[in-house]
Amino acid sequence: MNNIVNQLKSALGEDSVISGSAFSRATSYWNQAPAKALALLRPRTTAEVSEALRICHENNQAVVTQGGMTNCVASADSREDEIVLSLERMKTIESIDITGLTATVGAGVVLQTLQEACREKDLLFPLDLGARGSCTLGGNAATNAGGINVLRYGMTRNLILGMEVVLADGTILSSMNQMLKNNAGYDLKQLFIGSEGTLGVITRLVLKLSPKPLTRQTALVALEDFQKVSELLQKTRRDFAGTLSAFEVMWGEYYKGVTEEGGHRAPFGRDHKYYLLLEAEGGDLETDEERFNSALERYYENGLIVDAVVPKSEAERVALWDIRENFEPILEPKPIFLYDISLPIVDMEAYAKELEKNLRKRWASCELYILGHIADGNLHLFIRPNSDEERLHDLCDEIVYGALSPYKGSVSAEHGIGVEKIRWLPHSRTPEELALMKLLKRTMDKKNILNRGRVFDGVE
Amino acid sequence: MNNIVNQLKSALGEDSVISGSAFSRATSYWNQAPAKALALLRPRTTAEVSEALRICHENNQAVVTQGGMTNCVASADSREDEIVLSLERMKTIESIDITGLTATVGAGVVLQTLQEACREKDLLFPLDLGARGSCTLGGNAATNAGGINVLRYGMTRNLILGMEVVLADGTILSSMNQMLKNNAGYDLKQLFIGSEGTLGVITRLVLKLSPKPLTRQTALVALEDFQKVSELLQKTRRDFAGTLSAFEVMWGEYYKGVTEEGGHRAPFGRDHKYYLLLEAEGGDLETDEERFNSALERYYENGLIVDAVVPKSEAERVALWDIRENFEPILEPKPIFLYDISLPIVDMEAYAKELEKNLRKRWASCELYILGHIADGNLHLFIRPNSDEERLHDLCDEIVYGALSPYKGSVSAEHGIGVEKIRWLPHSRTPEELALMKLLKRTMDKKNILNRGRVFDGVE
Repeated sequence: MNNIVNQLKSALGEDSVISGSAFSRATSYWNQAPAKALALLRPRTTAEVSEALRICHENNQAVVTQGGMTNCVASADSREDEIVLSLERMKTIESIDITGLTATVGAGVVLQTLQEACREKDLLFPLDLGARGSCTLGGNAATNAGGINVLRYGMTRNLILGMEVVLADGTILSSMNQMLKNNAGYDLKQLFIGSEGTLGVITRLVLKLSPKPLTRQTALVALEDFQKVSELLQKTRRDFAGTLSAFEVMWGEYYKGVTEEGGHRAPFGRDHKYYLLLEAEGGDLETDEERFNSALERYYENGLIVDAVVPKSEAERVALWDIRENFEPILEPKPIFLYDISLPIVDMEAYAKELEKNLRKRWASCELYILGHIADGNLHLFIRPNSDEERLHDLCDEIVYGALSPYKGSVSAEHGIGVEKIRWLPHSRTPEELALMKLLKRTMDKKNILNRGRVFDGVE
Repeated sequence: MNNIVNQLKSALGEDSVISGSAFSRATSYWNQAPAKALALLRPRTTAEVSEALRICHENNQAVVTQGGMTNCVASADSREDEIVLSLERMKTIESIDITGLTATVGAGVVLQTLQEACREKDLLFPLDLGARGSCTLGGNAATNAGGINVLRYGMTRNLILGMEVVLADGTILSSMNQMLKNNAGYDLKQLFIGSEGTLGVITRLVLKLSPKPLTRQTALVALEDFQKVSELLQKTRRDFAGTLSAFEVMWGEYYKGVTEEGGHRAPFGRDHKYYLLLEAEGGDLETDEERFNSALERYYENGLIVDAVVPKSEAERVALWDIRENFEPILEPKPIFLYDISLPIVDMEAYAKELEKNLRKRWASCELYILGHIADGNLHLFIRPNSDEERLHDLCDEIVYGALSPYKGSVSAEHGIGVEKIRWLPHSRTPEELALMKLLKRTMDKKNILNRGRVFDGVE
């Protein structure tokens, strides 16, 4: 048996190191093929993570860190010569401070578990995304997850107050700050947030909570041109001052696609140009609903929106969100490619039109579905070329990112770079930025053992 | 004449390099003694900053960067062997995007100038602090400035989308991102925010704006115990959902001190235990005022607050804020020492009591004035020992920070470390954290030319 696996077993104990035929799991949420790896480590404490990394570092052993395995860019997919470090046992919610509005958690806590624990105390952990039932807070932090409430609460980065992280050589860096304000020296945790596990392994977090809003108003509305979508964003931000929590836009083709027969029930006409899921969460039980509804009436009278539906029950609300979040109805036939880009709002319409034109020029029957968190500059694209051309994914990437370049957009709004977007990173970053990223990586992980080959191909 | 000054003059032009008797200015806002320096550079562009740093780097020449000179910890005070790099000429507001809600600015733009330019477009740049009329956005970014609206909008870090920065060797790192979401590789700008000019010189910024709220409600209220202050914070956060923008607490002694004869006019009784300046900014012209006032009535009826005053004009509102922001009335006689600490809200009352006890034990007639952004965990202390003991400032530091240690508080909530708090940084950071900070400094500024001797004494 491999020497390093033995060393790890004697350091962490047999039950924390799974190897050989005992190691059996899928590669990721997206890829059900059996994972390959030297062994799987399941440490229970930061000290055990430290001990494991110290051993791996001494042995130049590559390690890949895993949270909920829902990563969209293959960051956490293990390779046969790698040790998998899973935080799955560090899943304790250590404390919730209802006065200071903080939660202290292990990195392996599932997002939804914390959301529910907060709700029970009338609090809110506002990060929310489709993978909530599987993704872990450590993974959310490592990838700076975004999701549907960024407009109001910011990305994961804005929700992290403190962090414990283990460096490549096993050094424990404990920065479990509880305060909103702390300018004592460099804010080191920022380095680890969004660096996709390449600079350290996050083991514990102090997270910022909010009070649970007392009221929630939701509407699905239809609009006929993008200028009006943009105008409505300005208006709702002002009218719902600080309480606007979601502004999710779906291009007409997407809405039509997911409400085809066998898909979601369409609550109203399927031929509008844009659909928008709007949500505001406030603090006044008596008047919030009336405020929201009279604003909708005003938007209708002023010709901003052409139709609107307000859910009459939680079930109806969930059904509206399902149209936005569950895109199963358009996923077949394969291949269909998913993109996650960002660009300034003022350029979105032009980009979308140009993209469609370029795609159709290449593949006459190509399908393009667009939806997005437009207030964050973030669009998700689903593209089905309907072609049997070779190198289809590469060609599609070239068209999508090629059209994005003039707008100084980003090839990754929220999913990160991982393995799949390494080739495209230079589209969004200058040579000087890439050089500094690699310098940081070389400095903090001299032997390049942490998530090797993610974000960058080589780091020299 | 000094060789390096000549080199800089031929590179940047005579009018951009002030030396000899032509160089005449105060050390800082706080210290009117004449500044000492080899020369003052006044570059007009990022390219000129790059050229200047390239020359200084080649010559191992120490450089100190200056913004508005309002720094509270002597970070920007120049030394006679240093070159001063001032961003004062880079004061252009390049653009304001009213749809994307961003402003692109030079680092030398004064905070208040941007605030006013935004207000004219019905927008808000929400960073706000007492030094608004002098401090610059580059300085705000380099120090991660906090201020009075952090509760709602976060610190400067949360308001920065993009940045252009010049590294120690003159390399220009341009990351002028416009989007809320961009996870393409490491978020390098985070390194420079709050590192007090020790890792690079910020020259341009993309900042995040908000819509200007349509309404503003203000009240000064009185409370009789800290538990009720804390309870009111929970209640107002919930009742004013997303619109609560200020929650500024003053301990009774502070309020009494600044409303002594010759000071501010006291709008009501001077013998309460706590005073609180409360502000909410909303979007509903018709009902926001009524909502706010009826919440105040409820708090009064429930015994949370014992008195309240609501300003009837903008002049009255300004007068209320003046009580909080203008502490001139307590600044004499000298010496009086200012502190800027943070700790969890649940520990604040115990800390304040212990601090007072310890101070009185040492100096029987010591005066202690406390006020703070308590929702952020941030307290400001003014301490007048009324003693002629030697090493008075050091002794006072020891008492303040000594009592803070058990609560895992921070020796600097928003002012940074600069020169004055170097000795105390290890109270708030572990040896591992300090080692990583110094590793970053050594890696990114090998010759230690940028703000040498700030944040750390030595970097080996």
